[in-house]
Amino acid sequence: MKLVGVCQYDGSNFSGFQSQVNAESVQDFLESAISKVGALNQRINYAGRTDAGVHAIGQVFDFDTSDSREPEQWLKGINSSLPKDIVVTHIVRGEEGFHSRFDAISRSYAYVIYLGHIRPVFLRQLTAWAKYNIDIDLLQSEAQQLLGTHDFSAFRGSKCTANNPNRTIEKIDITHKNSFLIIKITANAFLYNMIRIIIGTLLDKARGLLQDDINAILDSKDRVRAGKTAPAHGLFFLGARYNNPRIDSLTDSETLFQFLGMN
Amino acid sequence: MKLVGVCQYDGSNFSGFQSQVNAESVQDFLESAISKVGALNQRINYAGRTDAGVHAIGQVFDFDTSDSREPEQWLKGINSSLPKDIVVTHIVRGEEGFHSRFDAISRSYAYVIYLGHIRPVFLRQLTAWAKYNIDIDLLQSEAQQLLGTHDFSAFRGSKCTANNPNRTIEKIDITHKNSFLIIKITANAFLYNMIRIIIGTLLDKARGLLQDDINAILDSKDRVRAGKTAPAHGLFFLGARYNNPRIDSLTDSETLFQFLGMN
Repeated sequence: MKLVGVCQYDGSNFSGFQSQVNAESVQDFLESAISKVGALNQRINYAGRTDAGVHAIGQVFDFDTSDSREPEQWLKGINSSLPKDIVVTHIVRGEEGFHSRFDAISRSYAYVIYLGHIRPVFLRQLTAWAKYNIDIDLLQSEAQQLLGTHDFSAFRGSKCTANNPNRTIEKIDITHKNSFLIIKITANAFLYNMIRIIIGTLLDKARGLLQDDINAILDSKDRVRAGKTAPAHGLFFLGARYNNPRIDSLTDSETLFQFLGMN
Repeated sequence: MKLVGVCQYDGSNFSGFQSQVNAESVQDFLESAISKVGALNQRINYAGRTDAGVHAIGQVFDFDTSDSREPEQWLKGINSSLPKDIVVTHIVRGEEGFHSRFDAISRSYAYVIYLGHIRPVFLRQLTAWAKYNIDIDLLQSEAQQLLGTHDFSAFRGSKCTANNPNRTIEKIDITHKNSFLIIKITANAFLYNMIRIIIGTLLDKARGLLQDDINAILDSKDRVRAGKTAPAHGLFFLGARYNNPRIDSLTDSETLFQFLGMN
Protein backbone atom coordinates (compact mmCIF):
# COMPACT_ATOMS: atom_id res chain seq x y z
CA MET A 1 0.00 0.00 0.00
CA LYS A 2 1.25 3.48 -0.90
CA LEU A 3 1.05 6.21 1.75
CA VAL A 4 1.67 9.87 0.97
CA GLY A 5 2.56 12.37 3.69
CA VAL A 6 3.32 16.03 4.17
CA CYS A 7 5.74 17.25 6.79
CA GLN A 8 6.66 20.61 8.21
CA TYR A 9 9.95 21.44 9.87
CA ASP A 10 11.94 24.26 11.40
CA GLY A 11 15.26 23.64 9.65
CA SER A 12 17.35 25.68 12.13
CA ASN A 13 18.93 22.68 13.80
CA PHE A 14 19.18 20.26 10.87
CA SER A 15 21.78 19.65 8.18
CA GLY A 16 18.96 19.80 5.61
CA PHE A 17 16.25 17.36 4.60
CA GLN A 18 18.23 14.57 2.97
CA SER A 19 20.27 12.01 4.89
CA GLN A 20 23.99 12.70 5.20
CA VAL A 21 26.80 10.91 6.97
CA ASN A 22 27.57 12.38 10.41
CA ALA A 23 24.76 14.96 10.33
CA GLU A 24 21.23 15.26 11.71
CA SER A 25 18.82 15.32 8.80
CA VAL A 26 15.04 15.60 8.77
CA GLN A 27 14.86 12.48 6.58
CA ASP A 28 16.63 10.38 9.22
CA PHE A 29 14.22 11.47 11.97
CA LEU A 30 11.22 10.93 9.70
CA GLU A 31 12.32 7.46 8.53
CA SER A 32 13.10 6.48 12.10
CA ALA A 33 9.64 7.62 13.31
CA ILE A 34 7.89 5.81 10.43
CA SER A 35 9.94 2.68 11.14
CA LYS A 36 8.91 2.75 14.81
CA VAL A 37 5.24 2.65 13.81
CA GLY A 38 5.63 0.04 11.09
CA ALA A 39 8.38 -2.00 12.78
CA LEU A 40 10.39 -1.99 9.54
CA ASN A 41 13.48 -0.25 8.27
CA GLN A 42 11.39 2.14 6.21
CA ARG A 43 12.87 4.41 3.49
CA ILE A 44 10.93 7.26 1.89
CA ASN A 45 10.82 9.19 -1.38
CA TYR A 46 10.49 12.97 -1.05
CA ALA A 47 9.67 15.96 -3.23
CA GLY A 48 12.88 17.93 -2.85
CA ARG A 49 16.09 18.45 -0.92
CA THR A 50 16.55 21.50 1.26
CA ASP A 51 19.83 23.07 2.46
CA ALA A 52 20.88 23.24 6.10
CA GLY A 53 18.79 25.88 7.88
CA VAL A 54 16.01 25.92 5.24
CA HIS A 55 12.49 25.22 6.53
CA ALA A 56 9.52 23.39 5.00
CA ILE A 57 5.80 23.99 5.32
CA GLY A 58 4.84 21.26 2.84
CA GLN A 59 7.57 18.69 2.17
CA VAL A 60 5.79 15.80 0.42
CA PHE A 61 7.02 12.21 0.97
CA ASP A 62 5.77 8.70 0.22
CA PHE A 63 6.47 5.12 1.20
CA ASP A 64 5.12 1.62 0.56
CA THR A 65 3.91 -0.57 3.39
CA SER A 66 2.06 -3.82 3.87
CA ASP A 67 0.79 -2.55 7.21
CA SER A 68 -2.98 -2.06 7.09
CA ARG A 69 -3.51 0.50 9.84
CA GLU A 70 -5.47 3.64 8.99
CA PRO A 71 -3.65 6.82 7.83
CA GLU A 72 -4.87 8.65 10.96
CA GLN A 73 -3.14 6.05 13.16
CA TRP A 74 0.07 6.41 11.14
CA LEU A 75 -0.13 10.20 11.62
CA LYS A 76 -0.47 9.98 15.40
CA GLY A 77 2.19 7.30 15.72
CA ILE A 78 4.77 9.10 13.58
CA ASN A 79 4.19 12.45 15.31
CA SER A 80 4.63 10.95 18.75
CA SER A 81 8.18 9.86 17.76
CA LEU A 82 9.31 13.07 16.03
CA PRO A 83 11.29 15.86 17.72
CA LYS A 84 9.53 19.19 18.41
CA ASP A 85 10.87 20.87 15.27
CA ILE A 86 9.34 18.33 12.84
CA VAL A 87 5.66 17.43 12.45
CA VAL A 88 3.69 15.42 9.90
CA THR A 89 0.55 17.37 8.96
CA HIS A 90 -1.13 14.77 6.71
CA ILE A 91 -0.96 11.09 5.78
CA VAL A 92 -3.26 9.81 3.00
CA ARG A 93 -3.47 6.72 0.80
CA GLY A 94 -1.86 7.24 -2.62
CA GLU A 95 -1.99 5.48 -5.96
CA GLU A 96 0.42 2.58 -6.44
CA GLY A 97 3.54 3.84 -8.15
CA PHE A 98 3.19 7.45 -6.99
CA HIS A 99 6.63 9.04 -6.47
CA SER A 100 6.96 12.34 -4.56
CA ARG A 101 10.01 13.43 -6.53
CA PHE A 102 9.50 12.09 -10.06
CA ASP A 103 5.79 12.91 -10.25
CA ALA A 104 6.15 16.53 -9.09
CA ILE A 105 5.42 18.96 -11.90
CA SER A 106 6.34 22.09 -9.95
CA ARG A 107 7.74 23.20 -6.60
CA SER A 108 7.04 26.36 -4.64
CA TYR A 109 9.21 28.19 -2.14
CA ALA A 110 8.74 31.36 -0.10
CA TYR A 111 11.47 33.67 1.13
CA VAL A 112 10.59 35.84 4.14
CA ILE A 113 12.41 39.13 4.70
CA TYR A 114 12.02 41.32 7.79
CA LEU A 115 12.32 45.03 6.93
CA GLY A 116 12.28 46.70 10.36
CA HIS A 117 15.24 48.78 11.55
CA ILE A 118 15.60 46.75 14.78
CA ARG A 119 17.06 43.23 14.70
CA PRO A 120 14.20 40.67 14.86
CA VAL A 121 14.26 38.56 18.01
CA PHE A 122 11.23 36.25 17.85
CA LEU A 123 11.54 35.35 14.17
CA ARG A 124 15.34 35.53 13.99
CA GLN A 125 15.58 31.97 12.60
CA LEU A 126 12.51 32.24 10.35
CA THR A 127 13.23 35.49 8.47
CA ALA A 128 16.22 37.21 6.87
CA TRP A 129 16.72 40.74 8.15
CA ALA A 130 17.14 43.49 5.52
CA LYS A 131 18.38 46.43 7.56
CA TYR A 132 18.83 48.67 4.52
CA ASN A 133 16.26 50.54 2.43
CA ILE A 134 15.02 48.62 -0.57
CA ASP A 135 13.00 49.79 -3.56
CA ILE A 136 10.11 47.34 -3.54
CA ASP A 137 8.71 48.56 -6.88
CA LEU A 138 12.08 47.97 -8.52
CA LEU A 139 12.35 44.54 -6.88
CA GLN A 140 8.88 43.72 -8.23
CA SER A 141 9.69 44.73 -11.81
CA GLU A 142 13.11 43.02 -11.82
CA ALA A 143 11.54 39.82 -10.48
CA GLN A 144 9.16 39.62 -13.45
CA GLN A 145 12.17 39.28 -15.78
CA LEU A 146 12.80 35.85 -14.26
CA LEU A 147 9.48 34.44 -15.47
CA GLY A 148 9.55 31.79 -18.19
CA THR A 149 12.20 29.36 -19.38
CA HIS A 150 15.82 30.53 -19.10
CA ASP A 151 19.35 29.23 -18.79
CA PHE A 152 19.87 29.98 -15.07
CA SER A 153 23.67 29.41 -15.08
CA ALA A 154 24.18 32.85 -13.48
CA PHE A 155 21.93 31.77 -10.62
CA ARG A 156 23.39 28.44 -9.61
CA GLY A 157 25.87 27.58 -6.87
CA SER A 158 29.34 26.33 -7.78
CA LYS A 159 28.49 22.87 -6.39
CA CYS A 160 25.56 22.43 -8.81
CA THR A 161 25.88 19.19 -10.76
CA ALA A 162 22.84 19.47 -13.06
CA ASN A 163 23.61 18.86 -16.74
CA ASN A 164 20.86 21.11 -18.01
CA PRO A 165 20.83 24.68 -16.62
CA ASN A 166 17.39 25.49 -18.09
CA ARG A 167 14.49 25.86 -15.69
CA THR A 168 10.99 27.34 -16.04
CA ILE A 169 9.75 29.82 -13.46
CA GLU A 170 5.94 29.80 -13.60
CA LYS A 171 5.09 32.40 -11.02
CA ILE A 172 6.59 34.98 -8.68
CA ASP A 173 4.36 36.64 -6.06
CA ILE A 174 5.65 39.47 -3.88
CA THR A 175 3.68 40.46 -0.79
CA HIS A 176 4.56 43.39 1.48
CA LYS A 177 2.64 43.26 4.76
CA ASN A 178 3.52 45.01 8.01
CA SER A 179 7.30 44.78 8.20
CA PHE A 180 7.51 41.59 6.13
CA LEU A 181 8.32 41.08 2.49
CA ILE A 182 7.44 37.60 1.24
CA ILE A 183 8.62 36.41 -2.17
CA LYS A 184 6.98 33.21 -3.43
CA ILE A 185 8.49 31.42 -6.44
CA THR A 186 7.10 28.45 -8.36
CA ALA A 187 9.17 26.57 -10.97
CA ASN A 188 9.27 23.13 -12.56
CA ALA A 189 12.49 22.58 -10.60
CA PHE A 190 15.40 24.60 -9.23
CA LEU A 191 19.17 24.43 -9.63
CA TYR A 192 21.42 24.18 -6.54
CA ASN A 193 21.12 27.41 -4.49
CA MET A 194 19.08 28.99 -7.31
CA ILE A 195 16.39 30.53 -5.10
CA ARG A 196 18.84 31.94 -2.57
CA ILE A 197 20.91 33.49 -5.38
CA ILE A 198 17.75 34.91 -7.02
CA ILE A 199 16.66 36.47 -3.71
CA GLY A 200 20.14 37.83 -2.94
CA THR A 201 20.35 39.30 -6.43
CA LEU A 202 16.89 40.91 -6.25
CA LEU A 203 17.78 42.45 -2.86
CA ASP A 204 21.18 43.69 -4.06
CA LYS A 205 19.49 45.22 -7.10
CA ALA A 206 16.69 46.79 -5.03
CA ARG A 207 19.19 48.46 -2.70
CA GLY A 208 21.26 49.87 -5.55
CA LEU A 209 24.30 47.57 -5.38
CA LEU A 210 24.01 46.13 -8.91
CA GLN A 211 24.21 47.90 -12.27
CA ASP A 212 22.90 45.05 -14.42
CA ASP A 213 19.24 44.24 -14.58
CA ILE A 214 18.02 40.64 -14.25
CA ASN A 215 17.81 40.17 -18.03
CA ALA A 216 21.47 41.14 -18.46
CA ILE A 217 22.52 38.83 -15.62
CA LEU A 218 20.54 35.92 -17.12
CA ASP A 219 22.13 36.57 -20.53
CA SER A 220 25.64 36.63 -19.05
CA LYS A 221 25.24 33.07 -17.65
CA ASP A 222 27.93 34.22 -15.21
CA ARG A 223 27.46 33.66 -11.45
CA VAL A 224 29.81 36.58 -10.75
CA ARG A 225 27.37 39.04 -12.31
CA ALA A 226 24.54 38.02 -9.94
CA GLY A 227 24.26 39.10 -6.29
CA LYS A 228 24.93 37.44 -2.98
CA THR A 229 23.44 34.12 -1.90
CA ALA A 230 20.69 35.04 0.60
CA PRO A 231 20.85 33.27 3.99
CA ALA A 232 19.19 29.85 4.31
CA HIS A 233 17.03 30.72 7.34
CA GLY A 234 14.63 32.99 5.37
CA LEU A 235 13.67 30.16 2.98
CA PHE A 236 10.61 27.87 3.21
CA PHE A 237 9.75 24.96 0.93
CA LEU A 238 5.99 25.41 0.52
CA GLY A 239 5.18 22.26 -1.41
CA ALA A 240 5.10 20.42 -4.71
CA ARG A 241 2.24 20.15 -7.22
CA TYR A 242 1.27 16.86 -8.90
CA ASN A 243 -1.88 17.59 -10.95
CA ASN A 244 -3.53 15.33 -8.40
CA PRO A 245 -6.17 17.43 -6.62
CA ARG A 246 -6.22 15.21 -3.54
CA ILE A 247 -2.47 15.45 -2.94
CA ASP A 248 -2.16 19.07 -4.13
CA SER A 249 -4.77 20.13 -1.57
CA LEU A 250 -2.44 18.94 1.22
CA THR A 251 0.15 21.60 0.44
CA ASP A 252 -2.12 24.60 0.08
CA SER A 253 0.43 27.14 1.23
CA GLU A 254 -2.15 29.89 1.78
CA THR A 255 -3.53 27.84 4.64
CA LEU A 256 -0.26 26.41 5.82
CA PHE A 257 1.38 29.82 5.93
CA GLN A 258 -0.88 30.69 8.84
CA PHE A 259 1.67 28.85 10.93
CA LEU A 260 3.75 31.95 10.64
CA GLY A 261 0.77 34.25 11.20
CA MET A 262 1.66 35.93 7.94
CA ASN A 263 -1.44 35.71 5.83
CA MET B 1 21.55 61.74 33.20
CA LYS B 2 18.60 59.36 33.17
CA LEU B 3 18.20 57.04 30.20
CA VAL B 4 15.04 54.97 29.65
CA GLY B 5 15.06 51.91 27.40
CA VAL B 6 12.73 49.24 26.08
CA CYS B 7 13.92 45.73 25.39
CA GLN B 8 12.45 42.73 23.69
CA TYR B 9 13.48 39.14 24.34
CA ASP B 10 12.68 35.55 23.45
CA GLY B 11 12.64 34.09 26.96
CA SER B 12 13.05 30.45 25.82
CA ASN B 13 16.66 30.14 26.92
CA PHE B 14 16.66 32.41 30.00
CA SER B 15 15.89 31.84 33.66
CA GLY B 16 13.66 34.92 33.52
CA PHE B 17 14.35 38.65 33.45
CA GLN B 18 15.79 39.27 36.92
CA SER B 19 19.31 38.29 37.96
CA GLN B 20 19.65 35.01 39.84
CA VAL B 21 22.62 33.12 41.17
CA ASN B 22 23.83 30.38 38.78
CA ALA B 23 21.34 31.18 36.02
CA GLU B 24 21.33 33.11 32.75
CA SER B 25 19.00 36.08 33.12
CA VAL B 26 18.09 38.79 30.62
CA GLN B 27 19.01 41.42 33.22
CA ASP B 28 22.59 40.11 33.44
CA PHE B 29 23.08 40.27 29.67
CA LEU B 30 21.51 43.72 29.49
CA GLU B 31 23.58 45.17 32.35
CA SER B 32 26.72 43.65 30.88
CA ALA B 33 25.99 45.17 27.43
CA ILE B 34 25.22 48.59 28.96
CA SER B 35 28.38 48.39 31.04
CA LYS B 36 30.48 47.66 27.95
CA VAL B 37 29.25 50.87 26.30
CA GLY B 38 29.53 53.03 29.42
CA ALA B 39 32.67 51.35 30.84
CA LEU B 40 31.01 51.13 34.25
CA ASN B 41 29.44 48.39 36.34
CA GLN B 42 25.93 49.56 35.44
CA ARG B 43 22.79 48.36 37.26
CA ILE B 44 19.27 48.98 35.94
CA ASN B 45 15.72 49.39 37.26
CA TYR B 46 13.04 47.54 35.31
CA ALA B 47 9.25 47.47 35.03
CA GLY B 48 8.59 43.87 36.01
CA ARG B 49 10.02 40.42 36.56
CA THR B 50 9.19 37.61 34.19
CA ASP B 51 9.35 33.85 34.84
CA ALA B 52 11.70 31.49 33.03
CA GLY B 53 10.48 30.99 29.47
CA VAL B 54 8.27 34.12 29.44
CA HIS B 55 8.97 36.61 26.63
CA ALA B 56 8.85 40.40 26.50
CA ILE B 57 7.92 42.75 23.70
CA GLY B 58 8.22 45.91 25.82
CA GLN B 59 10.23 45.46 29.03
CA VAL B 60 10.98 49.02 30.23
CA PHE B 61 14.25 49.73 32.07
CA ASP B 62 16.20 52.80 33.19
CA PHE B 63 19.64 53.73 34.43
CA ASP B 64 21.63 56.82 35.40
CA THR B 65 24.84 57.72 33.65
CA SER B 66 27.26 60.62 33.49
CA ASP B 67 28.21 59.57 29.94
CA SER B 68 27.06 62.22 27.46
CA ARG B 69 26.77 60.14 24.28
CA GLU B 70 23.52 60.35 22.31
CA PRO B 71 20.72 57.79 22.97
CA GLU B 72 21.10 56.50 19.38
CA GLN B 73 24.77 55.65 20.07
CA TRP B 74 23.80 53.86 23.29
CA LEU B 75 21.21 51.86 21.33
CA LYS B 76 23.73 50.70 18.71
CA GLY B 77 26.42 49.97 21.25
CA ILE B 78 24.17 47.95 23.57
CA ASN B 79 22.63 45.95 20.72
CA SER B 80 26.02 45.00 19.34
CA SER B 81 26.85 43.31 22.66
CA LEU B 82 23.57 41.48 23.23
CA PRO B 83 22.87 37.85 22.25
CA LYS B 84 20.50 37.18 19.34
CA ASP B 85 17.49 36.56 21.57
CA ILE B 86 17.58 40.01 23.24
CA VAL B 87 17.34 43.40 21.53
CA VAL B 88 16.88 46.97 22.77
CA THR B 89 14.26 48.69 20.63
CA HIS B 90 14.47 52.22 22.11
CA ILE B 91 16.69 54.39 24.30
CA VAL B 92 15.48 57.90 25.19
CA ARG B 93 16.38 60.56 27.77
CA GLY B 94 14.12 60.43 30.84
CA GLU B 95 13.30 62.81 33.69
CA GLU B 96 15.64 62.66 36.71
CA GLY B 97 14.15 60.37 39.31
CA PHE B 98 12.11 58.28 36.85
CA HIS B 99 11.87 54.67 38.04
CA SER B 100 10.65 51.92 35.65
CA ARG B 101 9.14 49.87 38.44
CA PHE B 102 7.82 52.36 40.99
CA ASP B 103 6.40 54.82 38.44
CA ALA B 104 4.49 52.19 36.44
CA ILE B 105 0.72 52.61 36.87
CA SER B 106 -0.20 49.50 34.90
CA ARG B 107 1.32 46.54 33.13
CA SER B 108 0.07 44.61 30.10
CA TYR B 109 0.66 41.02 29.09
CA ALA B 110 -0.52 38.90 26.16
CA TYR B 111 -0.99 35.15 26.15
CA VAL B 112 -0.88 33.46 22.73
CA ILE B 113 -2.69 30.16 22.19
CA TYR B 114 -2.44 28.07 19.03
CA LEU B 115 -5.72 26.27 18.28
CA GLY B 116 -4.81 24.03 15.31
CA HIS B 117 -5.09 20.25 15.55
CA ILE B 118 -1.47 19.72 14.45
CA ARG B 119 1.40 20.49 16.86
CA PRO B 120 2.91 23.91 15.98
CA VAL B 121 6.51 23.70 14.78
CA PHE B 122 7.59 27.23 13.92
CA LEU B 123 6.00 28.96 16.91
CA ARG B 124 6.44 26.08 19.35
CA GLN B 125 8.29 28.30 21.85
CA LEU B 126 6.10 31.36 21.29
CA THR B 127 2.60 29.90 21.69
CA ALA B 128 0.83 27.42 23.94
CA TRP B 129 -0.93 24.68 21.99
CA ALA B 130 -4.59 24.00 22.89
CA LYS B 131 -5.29 20.72 21.14
CA TYR B 132 -8.81 20.44 22.55
CA ASN B 133 -12.01 22.25 21.56
CA ILE B 134 -12.68 25.39 23.52
CA ASP B 135 -15.83 27.50 23.74
CA ILE B 136 -14.50 30.94 22.91
CA ASP B 137 -17.78 32.72 23.71
CA LEU B 138 -17.77 31.16 27.18
CA LEU B 139 -14.10 32.06 27.64
CA GLN B 140 -14.96 35.64 26.68
CA SER B 141 -17.84 35.96 29.15
CA GLU B 142 -15.94 34.29 31.99
CA ALA B 143 -12.96 36.59 31.41
CA GLN B 144 -15.12 39.68 31.94
CA GLN B 145 -15.79 38.54 35.54
CA LEU B 146 -12.13 39.23 36.31
CA LEU B 147 -12.45 42.95 35.58
CA GLY B 148 -12.14 45.37 38.48
CA THR B 149 -10.58 45.12 41.92
CA HIS B 150 -10.65 41.67 43.56
CA ASP B 151 -8.83 39.57 46.11
CA PHE B 152 -6.94 37.27 43.69
CA SER B 153 -5.85 34.71 46.31
CA ALA B 154 -7.33 31.89 44.19
CA PHE B 155 -5.10 33.01 41.32
CA ARG B 156 -1.68 33.22 42.91
CA GLY B 157 1.14 30.71 43.01
CA SER B 158 2.13 29.12 46.31
CA LYS B 159 5.46 30.99 46.26
CA CYS B 160 3.74 34.39 46.18
CA THR B 161 5.00 36.63 48.99
CA ALA B 162 2.78 39.71 48.44
CA ASN B 163 1.06 40.93 51.65
CA ASN B 164 -1.95 42.35 49.82
CA PRO B 165 -3.78 39.94 47.44
CA ASN B 166 -5.92 42.71 45.92
CA ARG B 167 -5.21 43.73 42.34
CA THR B 168 -7.17 45.73 39.76
CA ILE B 169 -7.64 44.33 36.26
CA GLU B 170 -8.40 47.27 33.97
CA LYS B 171 -8.88 45.51 30.67
CA ILE B 172 -9.07 42.09 29.02
CA ASP B 173 -9.07 41.86 25.22
CA ILE B 174 -9.59 38.55 23.46
CA THR B 175 -8.75 38.25 19.77
CA HIS B 176 -9.37 35.16 17.65
CA LYS B 177 -7.56 35.32 14.32
CA ASN B 178 -6.65 32.46 12.02
CA SER B 179 -5.66 29.65 14.37
CA PHE B 180 -4.53 31.99 17.14
CA LEU B 181 -6.30 33.11 20.28
CA ILE B 182 -4.61 36.09 21.94
CA ILE B 183 -5.67 37.20 25.43
CA LYS B 184 -4.34 40.61 26.52
CA ILE B 185 -4.63 41.61 30.18
CA THR B 186 -3.86 44.99 31.76
CA ALA B 187 -3.71 45.45 35.56
CA ASN B 188 -2.12 47.81 38.06
CA ALA B 189 0.12 44.89 39.02
CA PHE B 190 0.00 41.08 39.15
CA LEU B 191 0.56 38.50 41.87
CA TYR B 192 3.10 35.69 41.36
CA ASN B 193 1.91 33.40 38.51
CA MET B 194 -1.44 35.26 38.44
CA ILE B 195 -1.67 35.60 34.66
CA ARG B 196 -0.69 32.00 33.96
CA ILE B 197 -3.27 30.75 36.51
CA ILE B 198 -5.93 33.06 35.03
CA ILE B 199 -5.21 31.73 31.51
CA GLY B 200 -5.11 28.10 32.67
CA THR B 201 -8.41 28.58 34.51
CA LEU B 202 -10.13 30.28 31.55
CA LEU B 203 -8.98 27.44 29.26
CA ASP B 204 -10.06 24.72 31.71
CA LYS B 205 -13.45 26.44 32.03
CA ALA B 206 -13.82 26.87 28.26
CA ARG B 207 -13.15 23.18 27.63
CA GLY B 208 -15.62 22.05 30.26
CA LEU B 209 -13.25 20.89 33.00
CA LEU B 210 -14.45 23.29 35.72
CA GLN B 211 -17.86 23.56 37.36
CA ASP B 212 -17.34 26.90 39.13
CA ASP B 213 -17.51 30.15 37.23
CA ILE B 214 -14.80 32.80 37.69
CA ASN B 215 -16.88 34.74 40.24
CA ALA B 216 -17.20 31.65 42.44
CA ILE B 217 -13.48 30.90 42.15
CA LEU B 218 -12.59 34.52 43.07
CA ASP B 219 -14.96 34.36 46.08
CA SER B 220 -13.43 31.08 47.27
CA LYS B 221 -9.93 32.67 47.54
CA ASP B 222 -8.78 29.07 47.17
CA ARG B 223 -6.07 28.20 44.61
CA VAL B 224 -7.39 24.62 44.48
CA ARG B 225 -10.67 25.82 42.95
CA ALA B 226 -8.91 27.51 40.01
CA GLY B 227 -7.48 25.70 36.98
CA LYS B 228 -4.00 24.71 35.86
CA THR B 229 -1.07 27.14 35.55
CA ALA B 230 -0.69 27.72 31.80
CA PRO B 231 2.82 27.14 30.37
CA ALA B 232 5.30 30.04 30.47
CA HIS B 233 6.16 30.00 26.76
CA GLY B 234 2.77 31.43 25.64
CA LEU B 235 3.21 34.59 27.74
CA PHE B 236 4.53 37.96 26.57
CA PHE B 237 5.13 41.05 28.71
CA LEU B 238 3.85 43.80 26.41
CA GLY B 239 4.85 46.85 28.45
CA ALA B 240 4.14 49.20 31.33
CA ARG B 241 2.23 52.49 31.28
CA TYR B 242 3.48 55.60 33.11
CA ASN B 243 1.06 58.41 32.19
CA ASN B 244 4.06 59.83 30.38
CA PRO B 245 3.13 60.01 26.69
CA ARG B 246 6.74 59.97 25.51
CA ILE B 247 7.61 56.76 27.37
CA ASP B 248 4.20 55.14 26.89
CA SER B 249 4.55 55.52 23.11
CA LEU B 250 7.62 53.26 23.22
CA THR B 251 5.61 50.23 24.31
CA ASP B 252 2.71 50.51 21.91
CA SER B 253 1.99 46.80 21.74
CA GLU B 254 -0.18 47.09 18.64
CA THR B 255 2.90 48.05 16.69
CA LEU B 256 5.31 45.82 18.53
CA PHE B 257 3.10 42.79 18.14
CA GLN B 258 3.85 42.89 14.43
CA PHE B 259 7.04 41.11 15.40
CA LEU B 260 4.91 38.02 15.64
CA GLY B 261 3.00 38.83 12.48
CA MET B 262 -0.17 38.55 14.52
CA ASN B 263 -1.94 41.84 14.06
